Amino acid sequence: MPKKQMKLGAFLYPTGHHVAAWRHPQAAANAGSSIAHYREIAQVAEHAKFDMIFLADGAGTRGTEADLPALSRTATRYVAQFEPLTLLSSLAAVTSHVGLVATATTTYNEPYHVARKFASLDHLSGGRAGWNLVTSTSPYEAENFGSGGYTPHAQRYERAREFADVVRGLWDSWDDDAFVRDKESGVFFSPEKLHVLHHKGRHFSVRGPLNVARSPQGHPVMVQAGSSEPGKDLAAATAEVIFTAQVTLADAQSFYRDVKGRLAGYGRQWDHLKIMPGVFPVVGRTRQEANDKFEQLQDLIHPEVGLSLLQATGGLDLRGHDLDGPLPDELPPTEGGKSRQQLLIDLARRENLTIRQLYLKIAGARGHWQIVGTPADIADQLQERFEGEGADGFNVMPPYLPGGLVDFVELVLPELRRRGLFRTDYEGPTLRDNLGLPRPAIGGWAPAARAFEHAAE
Amino acid sequence: MPKKQMKLGAFLYPTGHHVAAWRHPQAAANAGSSIAHYREIAQVAEHAKFDMIFLADGAGTRGTEADLPALSRTATRYVAQFEPLTLLSSLAAVTSHVGLVATATTTYNEPYHVARKFASLDHLSGGRAGWNLVTSTSPYEAENFGSGGYTPHAQRYERAREFADVVRGLWDSWDDDAFVRDKESGVFFSPEKLHVLHHKGRHFSVRGPLNVARSPQGHPVMVQAGSSEPGKDLAAATAEVIFTAQVTLADAQSFYRDVKGRLAGYGRQWDHLKIMPGVFPVVGRTRQEANDKFEQLQDLIHPEVGLSLLQATGGLDLRGHDLDGPLPDELPPTEGGKSRQQLLIDLARRENLTIRQLYLKIAGARGHWQIVGTPADIADQLQERFEGEGADGFNVMPPYLPGGLVDFVELVLPELRRRGLFRTDYEGPTLRDNLGLPRPAIGGWAPAARAFEHAAE
Ligand SMILES: Cc1cc2nc3c(=O)[nH]c(=O)nc-3n(C[C@H](O)[C@H](O)[C@H](O)COP(=O)(O)O)c2cc1C
Ligand SMILES: Cc1cc2nc3c(=O)[nH]c(=O)nc-3n(C[C@H](O)[C@H](O)[C@H](O)COP(=O)(O)O)c2cc1C
Repeated sequence: MPKKQMKLGAFLYPTGHHVAAWRHPQAAANAGSSIAHYREIAQVAEHAKFDMIFLADGAGTRGTEADLPALSRTATRYVAQFEPLTLLSSLAAVTSHVGLVATATTTYNEPYHVARKFASLDHLSGGRAGWNLVTSTSPYEAENFGSGGYTPHAQRYERAREFADVVRGLWDSWDDDAFVRDKESGVFFSPEKLHVLHHKGRHFSVRGPLNVARSPQGHPVMVQAGSSEPGKDLAAATAEVIFTAQVTLADAQSFYRDVKGRLAGYGRQWDHLKIMPGVFPVVGRTRQEANDKFEQLQDLIHPEVGLSLLQATGGLDLRGHDLDGPLPDELPPTEGGKSRQQLLIDLARRENLTIRQLYLKIAGARGHWQIVGTPADIADQLQERFEGEGADGFNVMPPYLPGGLVDFVELVLPELRRRGLFRTDYEGPTLRDNLGLPRPAIGGWAPAARAFEHAAE
Repeated sequence: MPKKQMKLGAFLYPTGHHVAAWRHPQAAANAGSSIAHYREIAQVAEHAKFDMIFLADGAGTRGTEADLPALSRTATRYVAQFEPLTLLSSLAAVTSHVGLVATATTTYNEPYHVARKFASLDHLSGGRAGWNLVTSTSPYEAENFGSGGYTPHAQRYERAREFADVVRGLWDSWDDDAFVRDKESGVFFSPEKLHVLHHKGRHFSVRGPLNVARSPQGHPVMVQAGSSEPGKDLAAATAEVIFTAQVTLADAQSFYRDVKGRLAGYGRQWDHLKIMPGVFPVVGRTRQEANDKFEQLQDLIHPEVGLSLLQATGGLDLRGHDLDGPLPDELPPTEGGKSRQQLLIDLARRENLTIRQLYLKIAGARGHWQIVGTPADIADQLQERFEGEGADGFNVMPPYLPGGLVDFVELVLPELRRRGLFRTDYEGPTLRDNLGLPRPAIGGWAPAARAFEHAAE
C-alpha cells in the first residue's frame, strides 16, 4: 500500500495573512480587486498540486468609525475585496484541477441560493467546488442584514443544522441520470428521477426542486470551521473537511481524536472527514533567512494596527502610552473578555515585554500555528503532526502573496515529496478524487438535525 | 455627427428561446450545464461586438407535480441550468469586451449580497457588469423562500425601490480614489473617502460600507424589465437599460414615449435610458428558407408542451381533446386570466384553428416580437423600429443556440453594418462606454423612493 499523503489547501487572503503583508515590497497591494493577482496564485497552487484554494469570508467590513485609524491601515479584515463565489467562478475558467472552496454563512443567507450557487460552481469547474459553512461571529455582519442585534450562538447553530440539511436535500433534487435529453422522443428529463424536497422546518420552508442538475461531485465538498461543541457536532454530522486553528501538537491531537470520535455516532467513517489545521509558514533557506523574513514583516506593523490587535484580542486599550515602555500598572476594567485580557497582561509581565513587543508577539499568524524555519524544519513539524494523528493535512496560510506561497512551493514541497508525504500528480479531476472522499448517494446521509440532540451548548 | 447606432444584447437561454429548441438537431441539449457551450456563444457575441449578453433568472423551477408531463419535455422554464452570477463570473475570464448582465430578484434577496456580487463581477470583468432588477412574478419561487403565500405586486415594488436605493448607496461606499495603498506611510485607504451608508428604511436596515472597492463602472449598469405602472416608474427612476416585450411598432413607440417621458421627473436625460425590446429572429437566405427553419422548430413541439402553453397563457385545459379538431364548444370556467382565455378562444374561432394550430400560433417567441425572413427583411424591421423611436436597440433572442445566434451574426449584422446601424468595433472596454451611459458620481442619483409618490398602483 502506498504511503498515506497529506492534503494541502492554499488559504488565500488578498495580500497574505500577515497583518502588514500589503506593505511588503513584493506584495500586490491592490490584490483585493486584481483578478490578475488571483489568477497567478491560483495557477501557482494548481501547478504545485494543492488540493484546493480556500477563501474566507464575511459579509461586511469589521469595526466601526472608532476603529478607522487602525482599519485604514489594514488590507485584511474584509475591508474591500472580491466576493468569493464570483471570484472562484472566474478562477474556475483558468484552472482545471485545483479545488475551489468558498466560505458562506448560514446566518445571513437562504439555503436555496447557497445550494444553487455552489452546485453551479461545481458544474462550471467540472467538480471542484467546496462550501465552507460558517455561522458568522462578527457582530458587524449582522448590521448589514437588518437585525439590530446579534443572533446568539446556539440559535445560529440551530439554523445552521437545518440549513445544511436543506442544502444537501436540494443537491439531491435530481438523479445523476435524470436528464435523458432524448431529442427523438422529446423527453428532456425522467419525471421519476426528480425528487421534490418539500422541506418544512423551524427555520426554513423550501419546496424545491433545485433548478440545477445534480453536480459532478454529487455534492460540493462540505467544509466547516467552527470549534465550539455545537460546531464540532455539526462538523461530525456534515463536514468532509475541517479547518481549525490549533497551535500545539497536543491540542491538535486532542481536537483530532475528539471530532473523529464523533463520526461513528453519525454512521460515518473515520477517513471521510479530513482535519486540516491552518499553518503560517515563514520559509528561509537558512533559519537566519527565515527569521529575517519574519522580522521584515513584523517591522511593517504600524503601531495603530498593533494597538488594535491588543484591543481586538484582549480588550486592552493602550493608545496614548509609550510603546517602548512597559504596560501601565493600572488598566481600566473592560467589558467582556476579562480572562483573555489577563492572559495578555500576564504574558507581558512574565516576559517583561514593552507594549510594542507584546503586540508583535501576538501579530503574525493571528492565532494560527506559526513556523519560522528552513524547509526541513517546516517539513519536520508538518510530518510530526500528520503522522502523530494531529492532522490529515494543512491549510497553508502564506504570510504574503504571491511570494510566501511561491516559497512554500519551491522550498517546502520538494522536501515533503522527497519524504513521500505529498502527491506528485492529481489523483483525478474532482476535489473529491483528490481528497479521497466518497461521492454521496442521493439521500445517503444522516440529517444534521440529529446533532442538535447531542450538542452540549 | 456620425449616425446613431443601435445597441444589441444577446439574450441567452440554454438551448435557445423556442420552446422546442433543445430538440433541434444542431442544439446542444445539455447546454444548461455545459460551460463549453456558454463559452462558445459568449465568444461569438463578443466577436460580433454585441453590447452584452443577458441572462434571465428565476430562483426555482416553474410548475408543480401536475405539470410534470409538459415540464419533463422542456429545457427552459428554468428547469435546470447554471446560476447567472456564477456563470457570468466564469465567462468574464474568457471574454474581454462584451457586457455581462444577470437578472436578480429584489423579492428573495438581501441588498448587501446583491450589491456585493455585482460590484465583484464588475471588478472581475474590468467594468462589464449589469444588474437586471426583477421583482419575480412566479409564485413557484416564493415556495423556495419560506413564505407560504405570494407577496402582492405593490409590496414587491415598494421593496424593490428601497432595495435599489440601498444597493446604489452601497456602491457609493468608497470614493474612486479611496484606496491609496501607500506602502511607505502604511495608509491603505483614506478614512475621509469612506462613506458609511447607515440606511434605515421600511424594508431594510443596512449599515454598510460595502466590502468591495468602488467598481470600474462606478455602478454596474442598472437594467429593468417590468412594464406595469410601478415598473415603469422604477425604470424611469433607476434603470439605464429596459428590456421589454412589445410586438407592434405602435405599442413599442407608445411604451418608448411613455417611459422616456418620465425621465425628466427624476432629473434624468432622455438618452441615459436605453429601451431594448426583445426580438426573436428566424433568418434565412430566402423567405422560404426562413419559413422552413421556423417550421422545423414548430414541428418539434410535443403536444404536451403545446397544451401546457395554452394552459399557461390562457388557462385553457384541453388535455384529452382531439388535437386536430376544433376547440370544444363548452369550456370549463377557470380561475383568473378570464380575459386572456377569451382572447385565445376568439382567435381560434376567428381563424378556424384546430387545437394544434392554436398552440403553434402562440409558441415560438413566447409573446415577444417575432420576425421570420431574410436578412434584409429583418434589418428593415429593426431599422424602422429604431429610427421610428420605438427602440434604442434590441435584445436578440436566438430561436436555438448556437446556430440561431450565428445566423444573426453572419447574415443580419453585415446588413445592419452596411446601413451604418451597428458598430464595427467596441467604443471602449466597459459596458457603459459601449452603451454611451455616463459613469455615476457618488450620490449623484435621485433615490427611487420618490417613484413611490408618483406610482399609480
Ligand atoms: C480556520 C478558520 C477559518 C474561519 N473562517 C471564517 C470565515 O471565513 N468567516 C467567518 O464568518 N467565520 C470563520 N470562522 C469562524 C467559524 O467558522 C465559526 O463561524 C465561528 O468560529 C463560530 O463557531 P464556533 O463557536 O463553533 O467556533 C473560521 C474559523 C476557523 C477556525
Ligand atoms: C423581457 C423581459 C424579461 C424578463 N425577465 C425576467 C426574469 O428573468 N426573471 C423574472 O423573475 N422576471 C422577469 N421579467 C418580469 C419582470 O421583470 C417583472 O418582475 C414582472 O414583469 C413584474 O413587473 P411588472 O408587473 O412591472 O411587469 C421579465 C420581463 C420582461 C419584459
